[in-house]
Amino acid sequence: MANEAEQQRLYRVRHSLAHVMAQAVVERYPQAKMGIGPPIDTGFYYDFDLGPDDDERPRSFTPEDIEQIERRMRQIIGQRYPFEYRELSAERARAQFTDQPYKLELIDAILAGGADEYGQERHGQEQENGAAPVLSTYRQSDFEDLCRGPHVEHTGQIPADAFTLMNVAGAYWRGDERKPMLQRIYGTAWLRKQDLRAHLQMLEEVKKRDHRRLGRDLELFAFDDEVGPGLPLWLPRGAVLIEELEKLAKEVEFAAGYDRVCTPHLAKEALFRRSGHLPYYAESMYPPMETEGLSYYVKPMNCPFHHKIFAERPRSYRDLPMRLAEYGTCYRYEQSGELYGLMRVRSIQQNDAHIYCSEEQFEEEFLAVVDMYLSYFALLGIDRYGMRLSTHHERGLGKKYVGDARLWRKTEEMVRRAMQRSGVPYEEVADEAAFYGPKIDVQVWSAAGREFSLATNQVDFAVPRRFDLAFVNRRDEEETPLCIHRAPLGSHERFIGFLIEHFAGSFPVWLAPEQVRVVPIGSDHHDAAGALAAALRKLGIRAQADLGAERMNRKIREAQLMKVPYMAVIGDREVADGTVALRTRSGSRETLARQAFIDRVQDRIATRSREL
Amino acid sequence: MANEAEQQRLYRVRHSLAHVMAQAVVERYPQAKMGIGPPIDTGFYYDFDLGPDDDERPRSFTPEDIEQIERRMRQIIGQRYPFEYRELSAERARAQFTDQPYKLELIDAILAGGADEYGQERHGQEQENGAAPVLSTYRQSDFEDLCRGPHVEHTGQIPADAFTLMNVAGAYWRGDERKPMLQRIYGTAWLRKQDLRAHLQMLEEVKKRDHRRLGRDLELFAFDDEVGPGLPLWLPRGAVLIEELEKLAKEVEFAAGYDRVCTPHLAKEALFRRSGHLPYYAESMYPPMETEGLSYYVKPMNCPFHHKIFAERPRSYRDLPMRLAEYGTCYRYEQSGELYGLMRVRSIQQNDAHIYCSEEQFEEEFLAVVDMYLSYFALLGIDRYGMRLSTHHERGLGKKYVGDARLWRKTEEMVRRAMQRSGVPYEEVADEAAFYGPKIDVQVWSAAGREFSLATNQVDFAVPRRFDLAFVNRRDEEETPLCIHRAPLGSHERFIGFLIEHFAGSFPVWLAPEQVRVVPIGSDHHDAAGALAAALRKLGIRAQADLGAERMNRKIREAQLMKVPYMAVIGDREVADGTVALRTRSGSRETLARQAFIDRVQDRIATRSREL
Repeated sequence: MANEAEQQRLYRVRHSLAHVMAQAVVERYPQAKMGIGPPIDTGFYYDFDLGPDDDERPRSFTPEDIEQIERRMRQIIGQRYPFEYRELSAERARAQFTDQPYKLELIDAILAGGADEYGQERHGQEQENGAAPVLSTYRQSDFEDLCRGPHVEHTGQIPADAFTLMNVAGAYWRGDERKPMLQRIYGTAWLRKQDLRAHLQMLEEVKKRDHRRLGRDLELFAFDDEVGPGLPLWLPRGAVLIEELEKLAKEVEFAAGYDRVCTPHLAKEALFRRSGHLPYYAESMYPPMETEGLSYYVKPMNCPFHHKIFAERPRSYRDLPMRLAEYGTCYRYEQSGELYGLMRVRSIQQNDAHIYCSEEQFEEEFLAVVDMYLSYFALLGIDRYGMRLSTHHERGLGKKYVGDARLWRKTEEMVRRAMQRSGVPYEEVADEAAFYGPKIDVQVWSAAGREFSLATNQVDFAVPRRFDLAFVNRRDEEETPLCIHRAPLGSHERFIGFLIEHFAGSFPVWLAPEQVRVVPIGSDHHDAAGALAAALRKLGIRAQADLGAERMNRKIREAQLMKVPYMAVIGDREVADGTVALRTRSGSRETLARQAFIDRVQDRIATRSREL
Repeated sequence: MANEAEQQRLYRVRHSLAHVMAQAVVERYPQAKMGIGPPIDTGFYYDFDLGPDDDERPRSFTPEDIEQIERRMRQIIGQRYPFEYRELSAERARAQFTDQPYKLELIDAILAGGADEYGQERHGQEQENGAAPVLSTYRQSDFEDLCRGPHVEHTGQIPADAFTLMNVAGAYWRGDERKPMLQRIYGTAWLRKQDLRAHLQMLEEVKKRDHRRLGRDLELFAFDDEVGPGLPLWLPRGAVLIEELEKLAKEVEFAAGYDRVCTPHLAKEALFRRSGHLPYYAESMYPPMETEGLSYYVKPMNCPFHHKIFAERPRSYRDLPMRLAEYGTCYRYEQSGELYGLMRVRSIQQNDAHIYCSEEQFEEEFLAVVDMYLSYFALLGIDRYGMRLSTHHERGLGKKYVGDARLWRKTEEMVRRAMQRSGVPYEEVADEAAFYGPKIDVQVWSAAGREFSLATNQVDFAVPRRFDLAFVNRRDEEETPLCIHRAPLGSHERFIGFLIEHFAGSFPVWLAPEQVRVVPIGSDHHDAAGALAAALRKLGIRAQADLGAERMNRKIREAQLMKVPYMAVIGDREVADGTVALRTRSGSRETLARQAFIDRVQDRIATRSREL
């Protein structure tokens, strides 16, 4: 990872590139109206309104435009134009941008306070300082843009060989679908040519591993119009992934002292009023089912049900920690436009559990959860990961956050200490906690190098009170437990989406939908092939014999396309010797005794090895 | 089981007892208005309106009433009054029952056609015969009732020592909650004193095994007002039953060549329109969730989703039979008044699967399903079971039943032949098939002797067409598959309700929520007890050590109350010798080596034995 100074330089380069690109666009399309152009994670973008085309639809950029714009950008960089800063009065700013209606709108928003030059809400702190809003611009060559900076000193400081324009996409002005659709040009930019190359290679790799394409080709899941958007149907091969992940979680959680529970997918409005999901989370919920004067909702989360189970009878310190686990399916009404493969869905099968514990038990429980994460990462070959601790901010107390400052400080200190003890790399971010307590987001990187938000853990010191949860402590007093919400394997949908990319569909043997394909060389060997597949299935191994009429090579190619880890070929010699001619998905070949082959498959499954 | 002649005699006895009871009631309460009084499965009942009590609520019978009524019934029996039949004109019938408003209502319904003297819809056949409705009565002593019979010849033919009055319950007139609440007296009646005794003993046994009480005492499940009626929360011990049953089903189904799938709990209206659930099944469905102009429904059945998975890609004869299995949770909006423990709920976790096959494959597939049932029955010690084949009736074609007479006959003949080959006892009932094909209901009897409707299998030759399901057969033609709907373990809710009664909560070791409780004799033995429990848990055995401060005997009593199969007691001698002093739930005691004990527990689990 780049150090702090490099990060800052990269930010300036990307920001400057947005201006350089805008200059090139405006030179080519003098009538273009400019939206905003910020630096982002991997580069920059800028939004433009080119006016309507002949069909009265928003005019877009052609591939040729993009090529010319990128060429012109390199010329501008070669000119080493300085970036010049100036502050303006409101009047002069409006005169300067008189032909730029979007900029005029931003100027008004800045002057009204509460917005920056990207139209984003300004962070409270600077606002609370009481300083009057400042209007400023940066100019390079004869291009001037509303901007607070920072930028590089001159365009020559932009590495001309470490950026490229990527693609064009429509984007509503200020993200509001009732407002005009602008054309957004994305670019990616880095400090060094090799960083750019690595990034483009990563994107190429990610594209090859696209979970939607592999999901279709490997027959893992499907969507159906009559079922509904964001509601995947898990086909037999995909359901194996679900079964195996649940089996893993159940084993690990049994060993860690969790108890499983099972709760309905819907409940009366009253439950979600008590939990606070209504009204605070209502926007993400499916609408109610109304009957006999009552409203029922499908659940967006499992927690209220688990709280009810905790509350089901009186509890004492001897019952704690109580760890209630459920692979519960929740439903959230994500906006149609945001649905994306398995990554953004409306049905969410969560590796959920809630740990009810006393304050003294917290650290041990928290560390055990972190250990569970690490054990999964090791098992799945996830080498790169990190956590993000989100804490509260004073100014949000009683609004964005429940109002007990002392409890916030205490809980955050508990979590911080535990994070430090865990040894897991983490960063702390203020003012992004959950309503009811600090939050830990877990980020992982797939083997293709892409970052995923895997799961969120939360420490909840507020909701147990809403459910009147209590236990009798050793001093015979009533005490409210803490509740840790955790889901190390996230949801099946997102986690399997991640695993498809991570393994490029070549799942380890224990996870593989089909573990062995038995391929007879000729029709004389069908019986022996069928018998071997049956013997394997009897041991619980997912095996099948391909007894079709195609030739052997075709059958092997098909098994390889389906990324079956083992292809066991059976011909005259194998029948005679009691062997199998084994080919693995990765291309290795060897002949081994039938039993030795069976032992190997069983060993890989039992140890959940990633070896073949 | 009684033979046909005995069954008919019993019917007459029970029917006659209803009249005798009504006579006794009317003698005691001359103002009583009579409702209906039919024979039922285990006896008879009669409904009465005794007018309002002092609080203007419907007056009920006191225990003393019941005692006096029963005594008077025996006197009437002793009098050997003949039952005398006569037919009446409408006018004379109305005059006869002028003080009996409910009877007058029944007379009108009979005259209007389509109802019998119990207000029930008359079966089509007699109606279609075109005969004019006949009004008739039976009289014994000076009591006369609207009735078609049949009855015994005289009251002396009723065995006076083989019946008893059971209880009184409120019942709405004609089952309609907007109509008056009548008082229903239930009686049970048999041909022999010992049959009555056996029945009462069975009821006593069933009461001791009441699944609602055991469910609470054994901490298996709970209901919560804020979650909603009919929506059980499965507590940790109950969730074990679910997990173990699913594990069993998954093993059995894997071996039988089933593929698992996983589908959402809700879908767009369009799906249920296509399946025909809307509008035909709408009354049993939760109301829609309406948003953005679309309606979503929670699923009342899994089949439409499985059909979609079948249709997801082109299929050939090589893909068949395709057996798609899912422990899917369905939701049905049963009337609040009909909800009863786990037996009648709104969330239904079904041991569901759909088998898509060709006609030639049908018999083998059907027999394999029957075999699966039998293997479960053997495993669970269900000795008494039977099946009921429900077929169509011509007159319902195109109305109650899809309209292809030839397909009905063909499918029914296929099922009948398969039933006969299966050797399972079954009876055939006309005119009770499902809309889309013949239906097989499976009845089992619990160890307490009570009958349960466990599951329904259906042969569906109609719905696959609605979903355009097809496969290319060997002759390269498109063919519509048959679909067998099957669920041998029914739903978790009903099946576990049954198992609780069947085992009286003393589940076999493999199913037991807690398999071993380790009990230290004194506090010196806590470490050894904890170590044994930990060793057992490492092997996947559900064990815990009771390290509380109570005395050993108290701990053993508690484990026995929770019906834990094994109590492993550890004291000085056991620590020294490496043994455990084993007590089983059934009371046996022995001392055995620690490893021998572990082996025994593992063996009982692995073989799913019912032995301890």
